[in-house]
Amino acid sequence: MSPYSVLVTGANRGIGLGLVRELLKDSGIGVIVATARDIENAQKLKEVQDPRLHLLQLDVNCDKSIKTFYEKLSGVVGENGLNVLINNAGVLVNYTSEQEPSRKDLLKQIETNTISVVVLTQKLLPLLDRAASQKPPSEFSINRAAVLNISSGLGSIGNNTIGSTEKGFLAYRISKAGLNQFGKTFGIDVKNKGILVSSFCPGWVQTDMGGEQAQLTTEQSAEALVSSFHRLNAEHTGLYFDRNLKPLEF
Amino acid sequence: MSPYSVLVTGANRGIGLGLVRELLKDSGIGVIVATARDIENAQKLKEVQDPRLHLLQLDVNCDKSIKTFYEKLSGVVGENGLNVLINNAGVLVNYTSEQEPSRKDLLKQIETNTISVVVLTQKLLPLLDRAASQKPPSEFSINRAAVLNISSGLGSIGNNTIGSTEKGFLAYRISKAGLNQFGKTFGIDVKNKGILVSSFCPGWVQTDMGGEQAQLTTEQSAEALVSSFHRLNAEHTGLYFDRNLKPLEF
Ligand SMILES: NC(=O)c1ccc[n+]([C@@H]2O[C@H](COP(=O)([O-])OP(=O)(O)OC[C@H]3O[C@@H](n4cnc5c(N)ncnc54)[C@H](OP(=O)(O)O)[C@@H]3O)[C@@H](O)[C@H]2O)c1
Ligand SMILES: NC(=O)c1ccc[n+]([C@@H]2O[C@H](COP(=O)([O-])OP(=O)(O)OC[C@H]3O[C@@H](n4cnc5c(N)ncnc54)[C@H](OP(=O)(O)O)[C@@H]3O)[C@@H](O)[C@H]2O)c1
Repeated sequence: MSPYSVLVTGANRGIGLGLVRELLKDSGIGVIVATARDIENAQKLKEVQDPRLHLLQLDVNCDKSIKTFYEKLSGVVGENGLNVLINNAGVLVNYTSEQEPSRKDLLKQIETNTISVVVLTQKLLPLLDRAASQKPPSEFSINRAAVLNISSGLGSIGNNTIGSTEKGFLAYRISKAGLNQFGKTFGIDVKNKGILVSSFCPGWVQTDMGGEQAQLTTEQSAEALVSSFHRLNAEHTGLYFDRNLKPLEF
Repeated sequence: MSPYSVLVTGANRGIGLGLVRELLKDSGIGVIVATARDIENAQKLKEVQDPRLHLLQLDVNCDKSIKTFYEKLSGVVGENGLNVLINNAGVLVNYTSEQEPSRKDLLKQIETNTISVVVLTQKLLPLLDRAASQKPPSEFSINRAAVLNISSGLGSIGNNTIGSTEKGFLAYRISKAGLNQFGKTFGIDVKNKGILVSSFCPGWVQTDMGGEQAQLTTEQSAEALVSSFHRLNAEHTGLYFDRNLKPLEF
């Protein structure tokens, strides 16, 4: 099997950093591109010593940053294209039903977690397509081409039973439901190109977003996620899973 | 039963206008507020002659317009508050997975159909709350208080089988899935206030958005919807239905 390439957004801390460290254990990977908004201060990422690791600047909310990033990424992956895009970068903007409405906060939440994922994924589609076209049409796996969206169990509409009042998840829930709909639609649209698309909840993880009291370390979450990524096939495309590949209800 | 009040956004044409005409047949309604972005040119709405009908200007994407509207609406509904808010205003921005990405188009689609619904509904919550507090706590119906979101079957993530390539529904699907998640979350949050929240697909309707070849006239869609609205009770809150009150999958 030829080595494959992976891109992780928001990789300077939290789950993104955990994913980079976990993925580097896989000798099948030839290139990992890890992005940060502020490369200068991406201390923990810089401490990772591996010749396969490339650090690139990316603010997903900025089209100019995406453009520059795309050019550099194209150089890094070259003729092989990009096999796996992991859309991990995200924010949690506290928002409840009964607060004063804030269009600005809703826009920030939904632009980062939903709209920017659409824009970045579309922009990288030619590189994913290039990778996919080099593998046999029968193959449907992360070794060929995949878009893996880090969603959240809070994106589930059907399983939503606690609302937003207690924890302030109104805008976040909307952003991740929108992301799940993107994954479903895009998955259908690019299936004929051999590109797999799936959405994942990483669990409740000890990060700046998840807080210290969370259930899982970033290592535990990343280990489960990467193991699930390797088990993905055509049946999983468009769908939504927990970190152990258990299907979640939209 | 005391007369109740209803507000319909985007009522100058299409399904919104159909809903206003249909609702006026109900003698139980004391006040209908119909909104248009451009009142001056809301010709068809002005032709409707009924003393219960009040026309007010509203651009849901503009906070200043919402503020002015809120003040006028408060005057119209007075101490009785607002019983029913029908979030009907919406746009369809053509968008496919394989087109050049456009952050602007995604923002326009999702701001109008999702974010502005959240903002307007939150803004009107005190008026809905006022209406709800005047009815017995056991009652759960549109005669007490309700938020009815005009969503679309295209918002369903689980039932999405055709993607976006053929018809350009990528951004629209995301906006309506987000709207459904808003309805689910908000429904849970305001249930204890006695406010019912449900999302509806109006069917494929002959409007500027639906096109001439659509299956239903605005009269047929509005008739089915209003009949379903009258059958709503506590069991329906947070959920998503077709025009005949058949449950739809999120
Ligand atoms: N932690 C949990 O319990 C949990 C649960 C479910 C889902 N998730 C999801 O998992 C993903 C990672 O979350 P986390 O817990 O690791 O969060 P985190 O520790 O707060 O890290 C978020 C990462 O996203 C990056 N980011 C934010 N906005 C960005 C932008 N505009 N452009 C580029 N990068 C941006 C951050 O970069 P900066 O350092 O520059 O801010 C950071 O690298 C998110 O999508 C989150 O919604 C987390
Ligand atoms: N037609 C269908 O087959 C169909 C199917 C499923 C769902 N729907 C949903 O049904 C609802 C009504 O659709 P329709 O078919 O009646 O569409 P339409 O004929 O295009 O009418 C849309 C209405 O929304 C208003 N609107 C748009 N943007 C607005 C804004 N920023 N502020 C205030 N009002 C705004 C329009 O006002 P202007 O005249 O000022 O533009 C117009 O009154 C929409 O939510 C749509 O998504 C329609």
